[in-house]
Amino acid sequence: MSHAPTGILASRHQQIRQAIVGRSLDALVVTSLPNITYLTNFSGSSAAVVMTEDRILFFTDSRYHTTVTERQAGPCACPGFELVVVEGSYDATVTAHLARLGARQIGFEAAHLTVSRHEWIASTLTAQSPGSKLVATEGVVEVGRVVKDAYEVGVLREAAQRLSDVATAAFADVRTGLTEREVAGSIDRRIREAGFERPAFETIVASGPNSALPHARPTERKLTEGDLVVLDFGGVYDSYCVDLTRTVAVGRASARSREVHAAVLSAHDAAVAAVVPGQSRFAIDAAARARLEAAGMADAFGHGTGHGLGIEIHEDPRIVKRRPDVDTRGEQVALGMVFTIEPGAYFPGWGGVRIEDDVLVTKGGVETLTRVTTELLEL
Amino acid sequence: MSHAPTGILASRHQQIRQAIVGRSLDALVVTSLPNITYLTNFSGSSAAVVMTEDRILFFTDSRYHTTVTERQAGPCACPGFELVVVEGSYDATVTAHLARLGARQIGFEAAHLTVSRHEWIASTLTAQSPGSKLVATEGVVEVGRVVKDAYEVGVLREAAQRLSDVATAAFADVRTGLTEREVAGSIDRRIREAGFERPAFETIVASGPNSALPHARPTERKLTEGDLVVLDFGGVYDSYCVDLTRTVAVGRASARSREVHAAVLSAHDAAVAAVVPGQSRFAIDAAARARLEAAGMADAFGHGTGHGLGIEIHEDPRIVKRRPDVDTRGEQVALGMVFTIEPGAYFPGWGGVRIEDDVLVTKGGVETLTRVTTELLEL
Repeated sequence: MSHAPTGILASRHQQIRQAIVGRSLDALVVTSLPNITYLTNFSGSSAAVVMTEDRILFFTDSRYHTTVTERQAGPCACPGFELVVVEGSYDATVTAHLARLGARQIGFEAAHLTVSRHEWIASTLTAQSPGSKLVATEGVVEVGRVVKDAYEVGVLREAAQRLSDVATAAFADVRTGLTEREVAGSIDRRIREAGFERPAFETIVASGPNSALPHARPTERKLTEGDLVVLDFGGVYDSYCVDLTRTVAVGRASARSREVHAAVLSAHDAAVAAVVPGQSRFAIDAAARARLEAAGMADAFGHGTGHGLGIEIHEDPRIVKRRPDVDTRGEQVALGMVFTIEPGAYFPGWGGVRIEDDVLVTKGGVETLTRVTTELLEL
Repeated sequence: MSHAPTGILASRHQQIRQAIVGRSLDALVVTSLPNITYLTNFSGSSAAVVMTEDRILFFTDSRYHTTVTERQAGPCACPGFELVVVEGSYDATVTAHLARLGARQIGFEAAHLTVSRHEWIASTLTAQSPGSKLVATEGVVEVGRVVKDAYEVGVLREAAQRLSDVATAAFADVRTGLTEREVAGSIDRRIREAGFERPAFETIVASGPNSALPHARPTERKLTEGDLVVLDFGGVYDSYCVDLTRTVAVGRASARSREVHAAVLSAHDAAVAAVVPGQSRFAIDAAARARLEAAGMADAFGHGTGHGLGIEIHEDPRIVKRRPDVDTRGEQVALGMVFTIEPGAYFPGWGGVRIEDDVLVTKGGVETLTRVTTELLEL
């Protein structure tokens, strides 16, 4: 498994330190695991980070000690890394170190820390280090993650190519008589064989009427002549997530299936075409929605057009309908962002279609990272 | 997939309502997905619940509308269920309904709601419904979940039997020349074929020196004569998690391998024997630790002895060393609790052993739900 090289980590740290200084903080406590992965290459299940202007304290427990120490000896070492092995409680250990550092203005990640943990840390700090104060921050690390750096683009491009190969191979698994679960199992095997660490989410194989459920789980239903089958799967490759959907027909597709597929494909293509640096993410969603509306299928498209990809399978930017009161994060897509385009149309009792690709915002406009035919295949 | 029958859900709701009344709340907002599953049978990725003394409002979005509506027509319908389909923001929709209900004292789950969401909901409520107040609660639903009801015991018993069969079959996958990843892929396939929805976590196949890493990820390392191999895997069956570990030898085990395995097995057996209703969970951990200490391996056992199993793979009770300041939840294990017993001993550079079973606390003491030989197999 590859990791971000030391120089890339150093430039990520530089951004965080500017934010620390800009907000007059003495330290930032990072508790979100994806953010910790981004800053240190750690990909286990328990860790915390305290960053200051010139230090980076990394907290993990004995389970990860050896792995972390070995990585620190290689070309992907985290610069400035000071390892603290936690015995017992993470929050107690982190708090004791904050008190020892003498940090007074201590930023924390308000979107990730729960009210309980915040209360415990705040009251413990008050006792151990009077005068120190927890300060809510949001998006300090995420604002860097939303625009992929050269290392990340390389990983995502490779991952998307591998996932495309999985899709092409998976078409061979679609045939009458196999159950949705059997096809899903076969796709999961192909995902691992293609070098992914694991599927990025529970693989969706939704056939016939089940294809009308955007988040269907594979069932014991057998694929049947005439079915539409939604195949939606993803993989985690070197800690980065990619995601792909194709909808295929078992045997001959009906006229209605062709019509719905054509409308969704048109929405997909319109959304991809709308991607250029500086474009509003709401406008990309609107481009997809307009095509489905023109086809009389506006009500059949209930979810958003896409989501950012990276260390998490769902991250910013959200390519959705504008919701003025609650969705206040950056509107424009920018060079280096990677996200899905995945419009769909769903008709309860009949079935549905979704077509999903992963795109990178480039100087010239857009690069589609996943490369699989978008024709309606009859298998 | 089976779900908890309506009558079981009704008695779970009854417990929550007693807590609502007991704390003088007008409503409880449940945002933890496992808690929502427990109360409603919902197993998707986005939902919220508002419970009052006589109502249960269930919030989800259009992706899950059909699935939820279909289940409500069957024998596992959630009683008193009022479906609210969210268009846009969950928190905005929930808050608007709380204001409409006229709820004044509104409990929320402090261990699950982030500081950001809490702030947003609190300030929005203040504007929409002056006089209402958010009240932190902890463990209102979890206190019920920690003791399994008859439905849950049935599911966990069946799941543990199926996982045991997977283990027995998986021993055939262990042979020289196969990589850890190949063996892990094969185990994952067996987990699905055994009827599990998915692996409960990333399957661990850690061979030779890698077996010294308690949370190793499968690598391209090939199994080699003389290796110890830790096989640690779990499955989700009807929403419930089970977990099992065996450590086997490839070919002849060395004298040292036998010695370490025997010490860990002794710790495992001592911990299982210590399980009776009313026993301290710390004493169960201490029973395992004492055996490893007697074998001179105290320092080789860095993690806890076990964790509760249920809708989550890690839940209460935690079978760990006593930590007076931070681990203040219930000490005694009780009839109906289900948890793992999984001591281990790890020697960096050499290797390690872990042996894990799932146990149910019974009237008579303990029932081991997983049933696979604990002998050191030479494969």
